[in-house]
Amino acid sequence: MAELHGNKFGTHRVIEPKGVLPQPAVRVDNDMSKEYDNEILCDVITLNVDSASFTQIKDEAQGDVEKIKSTMFSIVDKFGKHKNPVTGSGGMFIGVVKRIGSALKGKIDLKEGDRIASLVSLSLTPLRIDEIKKVHVNTDQVDIKGQAILFESAIWAKLPTDMDDKLALAVLDVAGAPAQTATLVKPGMRVLIVGASGKSGLLCSYVAKKYAGVTGQVIGTASSESGAAFLKEVPFLDATFRASATDAVAMYEKTAELTDGEMVDLVISCVSRPDCEMGSILPCKDGGTVYFFSMATSFTKAALGAEGVGMDVTMLIGNGYTKDHAKISLEYLRESDYIKKIYQKRYVD
Amino acid sequence: MAELHGNKFGTHRVIEPKGVLPQPAVRVDNDMSKEYDNEILCDVITLNVDSASFTQIKDEAQGDVEKIKSTMFSIVDKFGKHKNPVTGSGGMFIGVVKRIGSALKGKIDLKEGDRIASLVSLSLTPLRIDEIKKVHVNTDQVDIKGQAILFESAIWAKLPTDMDDKLALAVLDVAGAPAQTATLVKPGMRVLIVGASGKSGLLCSYVAKKYAGVTGQVIGTASSESGAAFLKEVPFLDATFRASATDAVAMYEKTAELTDGEMVDLVISCVSRPDCEMGSILPCKDGGTVYFFSMATSFTKAALGAEGVGMDVTMLIGNGYTKDHAKISLEYLRESDYIKKIYQKRYVD
Repeated sequence: MAELHGNKFGTHRVIEPKGVLPQPAVRVDNDMSKEYDNEILCDVITLNVDSASFTQIKDEAQGDVEKIKSTMFSIVDKFGKHKNPVTGSGGMFIGVVKRIGSALKGKIDLKEGDRIASLVSLSLTPLRIDEIKKVHVNTDQVDIKGQAILFESAIWAKLPTDMDDKLALAVLDVAGAPAQTATLVKPGMRVLIVGASGKSGLLCSYVAKKYAGVTGQVIGTASSESGAAFLKEVPFLDATFRASATDAVAMYEKTAELTDGEMVDLVISCVSRPDCEMGSILPCKDGGTVYFFSMATSFTKAALGAEGVGMDVTMLIGNGYTKDHAKISLEYLRESDYIKKIYQKRYVD
Repeated sequence: MAELHGNKFGTHRVIEPKGVLPQPAVRVDNDMSKEYDNEILCDVITLNVDSASFTQIKDEAQGDVEKIKSTMFSIVDKFGKHKNPVTGSGGMFIGVVKRIGSALKGKIDLKEGDRIASLVSLSLTPLRIDEIKKVHVNTDQVDIKGQAILFESAIWAKLPTDMDDKLALAVLDVAGAPAQTATLVKPGMRVLIVGASGKSGLLCSYVAKKYAGVTGQVIGTASSESGAAFLKEVPFLDATFRASATDAVAMYEKTAELTDGEMVDLVISCVSRPDCEMGSILPCKDGGTVYFFSMATSFTKAALGAEGVGMDVTMLIGNGYTKDHAKISLEYLRESDYIKKIYQKRYVD
């Protein structure tokens, strides 16, 4: 069959509604027998479902693995991609390059047989699942047999050879957050990491302390007892407290206590549950910045919430992509033996 | 009846769910016979419904004024505040101060009888509507008889005496956008105003040109034919084009054409309809900034959309509040005879 030519952004795969981009699209074409000259076809090994999405699926299935599987099959059947209709979010995959379209071949630093991680969201990636081999309920990772397509504008990273795939995947999944934390934190800043014990929160805490330095103060929070106990041992946190991010008043009061009423310059919100906007806004000082990394964040709740309490804070939508974020984040992992050990235990062993 | 003492942020008025702040709350107590010592009770004259909210209500009622009225009554009946359950947004009001609680009296620059505009969202403001006198379907303004409460942390502005109330209200409704545009635009920047013919878009265009200066380029867009024709006459726009913000590819191509492929440093999104995220992201250059002012913006669509096309752009959630935004925005209106005339015709006459 002759190759077809596709749109750079992938609009040629959009079935419904016509004319929109693949991410907002309801349904995309996941027929892998159609070959486009500017697509990359991959055999998928593991899906790393976005944390907000996986939490929602897992909660709805009450942890039942068979129900999780059937939900995932039904999402891909309906939409041609793994875009959770409740959270709107996707995740990423690791796989092996099966075919590179003729218009890209030799022009990009990638060849067939290379092992890569996709760095664009599954919420826009045409995906076919033939078999779900294993659901790792505690790591949001799902081993499958299937195929996925990367468009010309997509981003990806070759898997590093000096670490386990699942370790790399865990870092790459949240790579935008530590890379953007690095650009936001300046020496001497007070930084609050909301949800510091999780995958992105722990890496952000490390980066925040690295850049805030000895005169800075990095405070981590967790909502569970076990999370809070874990945080007490984290070497790069200056202070920690236990509070649910949905309890905005507690977040405010505990932060006030630990900062002598100064509050913090920067809040990084890494909690993958809804209604955590105000718990991230109130601890920030006037003129400070709140960075929302969680896909469970509501735009209006943040915008109107800040206005509602008369707070002049800059609020950033966590862009999953920052230039060189994969390279940067993998390097942070290499730097910290502590995080490497924790991640290895959580996401690999 | 003895005065009660209320929480600074208004949590004492939250009925459901308990413990959250008034904005995220489902239902607040709008019983105005309860007197708290740190509340301001106002007789409401006019509601200025948030544009995204009013558009949704109007569209659903197919423009029928009686249906709009019954929707508004039912929202306030159900929630104790005018928080549109679809858009999550509110609006603001103008009214006369009826009672100032004893804990605030004499400590704030306000006295009973003063005419003010609320600068916090109706989505958190306890409101009672006794009568809807007139629905101004083209200006999102609704004249009512009723009462509203401002909490201690609320912000408000005394209505200026040198202009019509409705003119001031129109500006104050969108005051955050021009004030924040002023802080974002630097000389020589290329700025795209998406939805430039609307209330916030026109003011933002003026401010963008003021700060971008002669070496800058300010481009305005409109989706309707009449909007595009209007923009051609706006003296402070360097270029204009007609495209729907939902058509991301058209937005990209037309911006590329007008900027010789350079794209813009800053995009200000003022369109009060859903699915305009990508139409605002694609025209931005790598490393640029996208400022979402519209309450119809989806957090995940923006976050995953930017990642999906591999664009490293800073995305800001439009905070309705910036320090002194009322004062700043009213002054911009006074400066521009052109906008004053347009606003007068649209929102007053």
